[in-house]
Amino acid sequence: MSLRNALLALLSSGPMTGYDVAKRFASSVGFLWHAPNSQIYPELRKMEREGLLATREIPWGTKGVTKTEYSVNDAGLDALATWQEEPMTYTPDRDPARLKAAYFEMGSPEAAQHNLREHISHFEYQRSQALDEINRIDSGTSPTLTRRLQNLPEEKHAKTIAFKRFAYEGRVIQAEAEIRWAQRGLELLEKLDDTGGG
Amino acid sequence: MSLRNALLALLSSGPMTGYDVAKRFASSVGFLWHAPNSQIYPELRKMEREGLLATREIPWGTKGVTKTEYSVNDAGLDALATWQEEPMTYTPDRDPARLKAAYFEMGSPEAAQHNLREHISHFEYQRSQALDEINRIDSGTSPTLTRRLQNLPEEKHAKTIAFKRFAYEGRVIQAEAEIRWAQRGLELLEKLDDTGGG
Repeated sequence: MSLRNALLALLSSGPMTGYDVAKRFASSVGFLWHAPNSQIYPELRKMEREGLLATREIPWGTKGVTKTEYSVNDAGLDALATWQEEPMTYTPDRDPARLKAAYFEMGSPEAAQHNLREHISHFEYQRSQALDEINRIDSGTSPTLTRRLQNLPEEKHAKTIAFKRFAYEGRVIQAEAEIRWAQRGLELLEKLDDTGGG
Repeated sequence: MSLRNALLALLSSGPMTGYDVAKRFASSVGFLWHAPNSQIYPELRKMEREGLLATREIPWGTKGVTKTEYSVNDAGLDALATWQEEPMTYTPDRDPARLKAAYFEMGSPEAAQHNLREHISHFEYQRSQALDEINRIDSGTSPTLTRRLQNLPEEKHAKTIAFKRFAYEGRVIQAEAEIRWAQRGLELLEKLDDTGGG
């Protein structure tokens, strides 16, 4: 149900066509919950059928073509509120990097070193992505958040901004932890190499 | 393929029946790559069919019943070495806790507070599990690791122990990052509450 909640949350910032949902998803909530367009479009139609979204046809271009615009109705807003009252869900741990690292002795030290460096690069990119989003939040240049605030009473702005920022801070904290871990691994490889593998 | 690699890695510590694989999996590598028995047994049979595992029938009890004992053959050892030379794989980010936190303003402060406390409890448990495993590694009381070392030449012991420990250190580092994040969230809730939600 997380994709559904992510789409409801995104659409609660204001009405959008399916195309706009997919586009904005990839540049906002998609950082927290990745989903390909092949999942987004069917889920939108499913949510409409289930009465969580209202739709209207809006003109598209000049040839009398129309596009479907989705908006969250009261049932959708209730679903968002219900989601927030529900407990957190946790998936069982399945970490390919941790699994591989536990058996580094079965491969070459070079492969272990390469993979730890890749781990650092991966999470340095993750961290920079999250920091970019935090900068957009702080500078008021996040398109989706800006639109959301325009549709919210002034007194709700501080909370709305603070929680978005908090979520991306979590991504930064997590990425930095992974980078620290991999750096510790590179030090371990050097130590084991000095001692001839012990 | 991670489950397959996890099973090969476990079985490389020594031959086991399917029952022993499932039992030991849950108390060792299963902390890094969770899998239910319903996945483990079929995968073992698949790996045997594909020539990665050798099997022999061993007596079970006194009534002439036998059980299948699995062991990693040369093809299985090659597969483990190949896995270690392959690059790390990363799944797209899908974090239900981060997603929910980004929209805490849509629920009650009480729900947000409750969920952040649950987040802390969840990762305190994860951390304690990983620290227990590190203690078993350090004290030489991890059954699977002990058995693995018995089948390894002395000069490979240090690396084998060090990388297991390193993997669980990663779980500790990750859990502590999540705890720090959630504690920051609790402080944020108090701050927003003082300012009447901004």
